[in-house]
Amino acid sequence: MHVIINGETVLENEARILISDLAIQRGYGVFDFFRTANYQPVFVEDHLDRFYHSAAKMHLDLTVNREQLKEMILRLIEKNNLPDSGIRITLTGGYSTDGYSIAKPNLLITQTPFIFNKDNFNRGIRLVTYPHQRQLPEVKTIDYLQAIYLQPFIKENNADDVLYHNQAEISECPRSNFFIVTENDEIITASQHILKGITRKKILEFSEFNIKESVINLKHLEKVKEAFITSTTKAALPVLKINDRTIGNGKPGAITTEIYNKILAAGKLL
Amino acid sequence: MHVIINGETVLENEARILISDLAIQRGYGVFDFFRTANYQPVFVEDHLDRFYHSAAKMHLDLTVNREQLKEMILRLIEKNNLPDSGIRITLTGGYSTDGYSIAKPNLLITQTPFIFNKDNFNRGIRLVTYPHQRQLPEVKTIDYLQAIYLQPFIKENNADDVLYHNQAEISECPRSNFFIVTENDEIITASQHILKGITRKKILEFSEFNIKESVINLKHLEKVKEAFITSTTKAALPVLKINDRTIGNGKPGAITTEIYNKILAAGKLL
Repeated sequence: MHVIINGETVLENEARILISDLAIQRGYGVFDFFRTANYQPVFVEDHLDRFYHSAAKMHLDLTVNREQLKEMILRLIEKNNLPDSGIRITLTGGYSTDGYSIAKPNLLITQTPFIFNKDNFNRGIRLVTYPHQRQLPEVKTIDYLQAIYLQPFIKENNADDVLYHNQAEISECPRSNFFIVTENDEIITASQHILKGITRKKILEFSEFNIKESVINLKHLEKVKEAFITSTTKAALPVLKINDRTIGNGKPGAITTEIYNKILAAGKLL
Repeated sequence: MHVIINGETVLENEARILISDLAIQRGYGVFDFFRTANYQPVFVEDHLDRFYHSAAKMHLDLTVNREQLKEMILRLIEKNNLPDSGIRITLTGGYSTDGYSIAKPNLLITQTPFIFNKDNFNRGIRLVTYPHQRQLPEVKTIDYLQAIYLQPFIKENNADDVLYHNQAEISECPRSNFFIVTENDEIITASQHILKGITRKKILEFSEFNIKESVINLKHLEKVKEAFITSTTKAALPVLKINDRTIGNGKPGAITTEIYNKILAAGKLL
């Protein structure tokens, strides 16, 4: 597999950057991630919008313009000849001379095989709640320190992932947005203090559902009919358990299934 | 200048790691930083205690034992032939196959020239407060995302660094601990939600002062006689202004000066 570093195509196992990079020194960088389906990037304009927004927000000088970046992405897809994949574009803080100041960013584009597994839907996912508010939540930074730190905690609690909350307010999972379906078939996802996912955005555009962005409190979980999480790799995945509480009847709900089928079609996953 | 990567000595401008490292992918890693004075590492046992603690806390498998690590540090000092320096040891999340799971960590040891500048003391430092609580504050991780993001904010506010607080409770600066001197000549530093600095630890051991670890509230700032910050590179630096408030008479205070002289001596900076 090949990757592109600052415009140059190199083999994955030779793809290195200097250790003075601010990502290594200070965890400083942004990224975005999208799928390709049959060699075509999916929702790529949305992901590039967000990537340029993340870079600007974090004061990273992305000198490559959008057309140039798209050209690199297409070049990598052609080079690797991999039809169904995940593509990650990363922009780091660059080679800092003092280990603290932002420098000329390094732009990394990597591609990995990705085949969507439809079996995951019926298995669903179990979440464990944890009090944490991500820093700079609306920017897609490379910071997953808390989430990776919590992996043993997640396993100990017989869960598959963690659901963050700040005081009573639920925000998101580390790599997914969280939705609930209320007793009245209202669909709610957190309105603030989250990273606004592209799959979340696409689902909010489904006009046949009653979806709103609002505040979800921990106590809402006591009465939810369904819950699901969304992301580029998961599409929509039913949440079947949160802590010790079974959600609904412990099987994917009707509304979650409808949303899932619609987002599969929109994301070229059928 | 040379650096050591996983035990191997390489030139600084050839010191690279693969971009699959979890530091680059997910901002995941820990480090520590100490000075050398006349080729001798200063407070090295304290720094190594903390480094091993950080690695264990973050589930990073540091297979190099303490004697081996010290041997590498001394080898690097000899190789670079640099008497007065800063040495940074970094342990990253390693080359992750899935971009999320911790792998075999990469151990990086770097050395940079460092000459302590005594002129900084009289210039002091100006701080601007900002509401933020660092994640996993008691572990020395590589996460400085918020601090680097805030650099333009700091400049706009005519300050030199930021002082974090959570609600009313003051914690620390991104790379320094914070102390106040009250009207009664009591010295207070935050007791919790902070990284416990080695310089802070040494100062707490000065038995001739009345120092306590406690909660410092924003409203305490209205009445402080003196304030100072401490770190390996700063020793103790007077805080002369916080937001629009001048601290004391705007010059280094008597107690700060005493503490400074004592920590200079302890840290072989005289």
